[in-house]
Amino acid sequence: MKIGILSAGGDCPGINAAIRGVGKTAIVKYGMEVIGISNGFSGLIDMNYEVLTEKKLSGILTVGGTILGTSRIKPFKPQEGDTVEDKPQVIKENYHNMGLDALVCIGGNGTQRTANLLSKEGLNIIGLPKTIDNDVWGTDVTFGFDSAVNIATDAIDRLHTTANSHKRVMVIEVMGHNAGWIALYSGVAGGGDIILLPEVEYDMDVVANTLLNRSEKGKPYSIVVVGEGIKVPKKKSAARFIGKQIQERTGLETRETILGYTQRGGTPSPADRILATRYGAYAAELIHTKNFGSMVCIKNNQITSIPLEEVGGKTKLIDLNNRLVTKARNMGVCFGDKF
Amino acid sequence: MKIGILSAGGDCPGINAAIRGVGKTAIVKYGMEVIGISNGFSGLIDMNYEVLTEKKLSGILTVGGTILGTSRIKPFKPQEGDTVEDKPQVIKENYHNMGLDALVCIGGNGTQRTANLLSKEGLNIIGLPKTIDNDVWGTDVTFGFDSAVNIATDAIDRLHTTANSHKRVMVIEVMGHNAGWIALYSGVAGGGDIILLPEVEYDMDVVANTLLNRSEKGKPYSIVVVGEGIKVPKKKSAARFIGKQIQERTGLETRETILGYTQRGGTPSPADRILATRYGAYAAELIHTKNFGSMVCIKNNQITSIPLEEVGGKTKLIDLNNRLVTKARNMGVCFGDKF
Amino acid sequence: MKIGILSAGGDCPGINAAIRGVGKTAIVKYGMEVIGISNGFSGLIDMNYEVLTEKKLSGILTVGGTILGTSRIKPFKPQEGDTVEDKPQVIKENYHNMGLDALVCIGGNGTQRTANLLSKEGLNIIGLPKTIDNDVWGTDVTFGFDSAVNIATDAIDRLHTTANSHKRVMVIEVMGHNAGWIALYSGVAGGGDIILLPEVEYDMDVVANTLLNRSEKGKPYSIVVVGEGIKVPKKKSAARFIGKQIQERTGLETRETILGYTQRGGTPSPADRILATRYGAYAAELIHTKNFGSMVCIKNNQITSIPLEEVGGKTKLIDLNNRLVTKARNMGVCFGDKF
Amino acid sequence: MKIGILSAGGDCPGINAAIRGVGKTAIVKYGMEVIGISNGFSGLIDMNYEVLTEKKLSGILTVGGTILGTSRIKPFKPQEGDTVEDKPQVIKENYHNMGLDALVCIGGNGTQRTANLLSKEGLNIIGLPKTIDNDVWGTDVTFGFDSAVNIATDAIDRLHTTANSHKRVMVIEVMGHNAGWIALYSGVAGGGDIILLPEVEYDMDVVANTLLNRSEKGKPYSIVVVGEGIKVPKKKSAARFIGKQIQERTGLETRETILGYTQRGGTPSPADRILATRYGAYAAELIHTKNFGSMVCIKNNQITSIPLEEVGGKTKLIDLNNRLVTKARNMGVCFGDKF
Repeated sequence: MKIGILSAGGDCPGINAAIRGVGKTAIVKYGMEVIGISNGFSGLIDMNYEVLTEKKLSGILTVGGTILGTSRIKPFKPQEGDTVEDKPQVIKENYHNMGLDALVCIGGNGTQRTANLLSKEGLNIIGLPKTIDNDVWGTDVTFGFDSAVNIATDAIDRLHTTANSHKRVMVIEVMGHNAGWIALYSGVAGGGDIILLPEVEYDMDVVANTLLNRSEKGKPYSIVVVGEGIKVPKKKSAARFIGKQIQERTGLETRETILGYTQRGGTPSPADRILATRYGAYAAELIHTKNFGSMVCIKNNQITSIPLEEVGGKTKLIDLNNRLVTKARNMGVCFGDKF
Repeated sequence: MKIGILSAGGDCPGINAAIRGVGKTAIVKYGMEVIGISNGFSGLIDMNYEVLTEKKLSGILTVGGTILGTSRIKPFKPQEGDTVEDKPQVIKENYHNMGLDALVCIGGNGTQRTANLLSKEGLNIIGLPKTIDNDVWGTDVTFGFDSAVNIATDAIDRLHTTANSHKRVMVIEVMGHNAGWIALYSGVAGGGDIILLPEVEYDMDVVANTLLNRSEKGKPYSIVVVGEGIKVPKKKSAARFIGKQIQERTGLETRETILGYTQRGGTPSPADRILATRYGAYAAELIHTKNFGSMVCIKNNQITSIPLEEVGGKTKLIDLNNRLVTKARNMGVCFGDKF
Repeated sequence: MKIGILSAGGDCPGINAAIRGVGKTAIVKYGMEVIGISNGFSGLIDMNYEVLTEKKLSGILTVGGTILGTSRIKPFKPQEGDTVEDKPQVIKENYHNMGLDALVCIGGNGTQRTANLLSKEGLNIIGLPKTIDNDVWGTDVTFGFDSAVNIATDAIDRLHTTANSHKRVMVIEVMGHNAGWIALYSGVAGGGDIILLPEVEYDMDVVANTLLNRSEKGKPYSIVVVGEGIKVPKKKSAARFIGKQIQERTGLETRETILGYTQRGGTPSPADRILATRYGAYAAELIHTKNFGSMVCIKNNQITSIPLEEVGGKTKLIDLNNRLVTKARNMGVCFGDKF
Repeated sequence: MKIGILSAGGDCPGINAAIRGVGKTAIVKYGMEVIGISNGFSGLIDMNYEVLTEKKLSGILTVGGTILGTSRIKPFKPQEGDTVEDKPQVIKENYHNMGLDALVCIGGNGTQRTANLLSKEGLNIIGLPKTIDNDVWGTDVTFGFDSAVNIATDAIDRLHTTANSHKRVMVIEVMGHNAGWIALYSGVAGGGDIILLPEVEYDMDVVANTLLNRSEKGKPYSIVVVGEGIKVPKKKSAARFIGKQIQERTGLETRETILGYTQRGGTPSPADRILATRYGAYAAELIHTKNFGSMVCIKNNQITSIPLEEVGGKTKLIDLNNRLVTKARNMGVCFGDKF
């Protein structure tokens, strides 16, 4: 058997561990041939690929990013400047030209949607979810998330000492367009006093009063963790908007930090390496058992799979009854809502 | 209500996060009074304790070790040099003298056994499992484990570069008396070539041949991860014994590292802070609902509890059909057994 | 003898190590009494202080920020809203009321200027330089700088992997208002391709051409490190401005990161702990030998001192003949100027 | 011009940064051709080498170990099993066969001795010092040292929390055969209570009394940092011997950790990357100006060079009047001697 692997969408720590997991299992256990396709789906269009030997898979476990490169090309969405007319058709032809028996698509929600459409076109597809945002529907957790939470928490830890020395309110914006998973987890792990999530409508009065109450109780500094996707006036940064509001309403000295792209780079955490390895190894098993059209996932600590068509187009958000939210509330954390 | 908290047995990262979780939830949510008992069960014998206010619980989330101190005193086991005759009786009296309505016992297997015996004596006990070894029966994972795996994996990462430069076999011994969880997880996360677990009988010929095969295939260096509890001649260190055997049987240059106590110290990982916080918060909930005689645990990602009497005296070992072991095997990792 | 210590201005990693160095040496070696003054010079105005015992100095070596707190109050500059009319006079009186024989002022350029003025007023002052920016005149290096360079370099390392995966230009802005030390050192340590310093006038054409040349040579991604103090249109962030210019002039996909306050927080690096300890210990020696009116400094690896009046009001900038700049140029690093 | 680079002796963080510094400067600035010789001097004997292009030098700045490999072969010392009779002669011939105009030898004291002998044989040699031990004579500091101190200090930080929780004496052994630089710097940076250096004769009574005094003063735990090269009975580990002595003489619960090979692996610290880069760049400059027979060094923060023949065979030890030792003593640190 000959299988292809590609990574698409935003990169995250652990993709290489997943590629290694698929590749090594395919080669060592099943004697398959493994092809690495460059730059996401565009490598399938312009036939940009190379054979992945055991040797090439060696030493990449700890490397951040993706050795295959990535792109945000969406084959099923015509884009301005397209030179290839029918991209899905070209991909199908090249899939056969390359002699592939299966294709592993590593990516986030958008990639899994494309994977599903390719599967419906008759290709043998396995989806493999990855994103630091942890918002892929159908799986309990994605690799990249633990690493991103580590980086964000480390930043919050650093802000604590400077907030304390200067008696300031420090606002930190972490990634998460629609889903506030990184904000919630790094906020709780970092001991944030206020955590604003895209999923929870906040009230600026609640935020301001919470900070003033803390100040009156002799707690001279506060940490506010903000998910980038919270509702703010158009084109404004979440942190800048919230910071300015706090300063105006409370008079407390406030500073903002936007963590940005450092959250998605660097060597993956051990937990992410293991999760990515398990995902990758299982993808090879699914190919071996010809369980195509499915996405690897983890449910209740068990690696399993779900049909790709159940995944496509959905986003996993934080439920307002989320138990970690409740526990944090019980300990005095404010989520910005009237509770 | 007035509740006590103590930590007993070996320390690990996250205990303070758990203490904070219990305490803040008890104070903020339930209006309880919280007492911190010093140095494990010995603080109950010599009445060494202090009130834990919200302020005292502030800032300890990231601190390693335990602010309460710990000891390895076993109240139900008479020991040489005991000055107190009937320790359980003294503990019972002091529990009542201190006006406690419940007692949270943070600790490993030994502590949970004691907790169960105290519960049978009529005290209102909540067990809260902690250990870097991850071997507490009845829970999927304990806090401290992720931090220890991080430290061990970081060490393996470092050894990789020096092994590679010198073309050496590097043997690293990680903690785990009966259970090889740290060895398994850090071994997979660190890309170990051979992983020896206390649960798997190894054959020195298999180990030697695996290394010679790698060498012949042009892989000039190898990493061997060893759980400290594997069977070796009495009083020998696992790493030293295995290292010497490898050197003698293969002639490959071999060096050993024993990671030791650095594995249990330092600031907890974000994942451990969150797990410990959830455990702690749930312990307070169990007290509020008077679910005494139970231990907090996590099952399928859900915090819940099990009766203390089901836990006592058991150890959670790695099953030979463990899926991570199988996946690692499929990728070419050797576990030292004839497979 | 009775001595006071205060920290003023922006906080940085290592202040507590310096406080500990002064305090332990003063107590253990010279039998002095040590007073910790709260919140910079404002603690001298409102008599907010506490005795620092050996015990209170224990365990603070690794703690970020400053246990004494800090403020940006400038006693010799009347400010709007001042309630105290003649602050220098009040400080002098309180210095005597507190029975101080000497005062150690830990801070950056502004603090050393104030220290000099207080010295001229007749107080026994020792200046102790600190700043992550490394721009205090009269000393080769300040503590806080190594820690800040570590944090910035770590961020650049992370951006490398994501830049590589996405074939992007990543622009990162690091601290440094007038002096580009952090940009230079983290830029070289992180392998930055272009480094823009406040001290070097950059030409946007040079920057754009360098990036295009790299792109044409098959180097699909680049790292641009930017000191926050480079010349850009008013109120613009350095990174945002440069990033937008690059995108417009080259068409290369460009992303920006502003590192912000995370650079000044957290536990100090070992090198900073040692430097701060040496500074602190030497400050106590200077008090013992009554060498007042001087600032601790390091010259050619040797701790020594210079008169405070030589320091005040000057800033240590990067010389254009700086050897590290030259060496980096020789290796192909672009500093944005026509060279 | 055509130049060769090799790395010999024990590896350390920063060698690749130095190789990159030499190579990029030689190629970009001087248009030289650069050859990487494999596995130290043995690559010169068996003609094992490859051309180092700019592309091959890219991305190695942060990589631990050495991409060239290393070996401990000493060409001027006949060894058992030698198949090559006159190794220096073979090296000379191959140097000419390869068309080399100069050779950069990266290594510690032993390597610099060999470099000097080859220089005397008429080859154009530049020595480039490296070692985590910081004991190369003739230079203020070597790269690798800062990284090793960081790793050792991190370990001491971790031991602090567990020592504190358990009220134990923790003994930690760090690298350094004859020179105690790592022990001194990590000991001071980690807040060690007792630091034993190979250069200072210790008295076990002093050690024991210091610990007992601390214990009596209510300091329930202590950290003892031990250089591996201190005098202990033959074949004993320094940490084990000292630990056992402490336990026997004081009755205090004592635990030992031997840090081992993790100290020499992993990505170099930013400071080491910069130092190695400066060393490397300067080596290329020395070749350009034909200053052969010299070793790159740093004196008073300035990169310069000294004749190789002044270096050979000497070791830089800690002077007993070392100012950091004195400052640490003044703060209460015990060095095990009757002072």
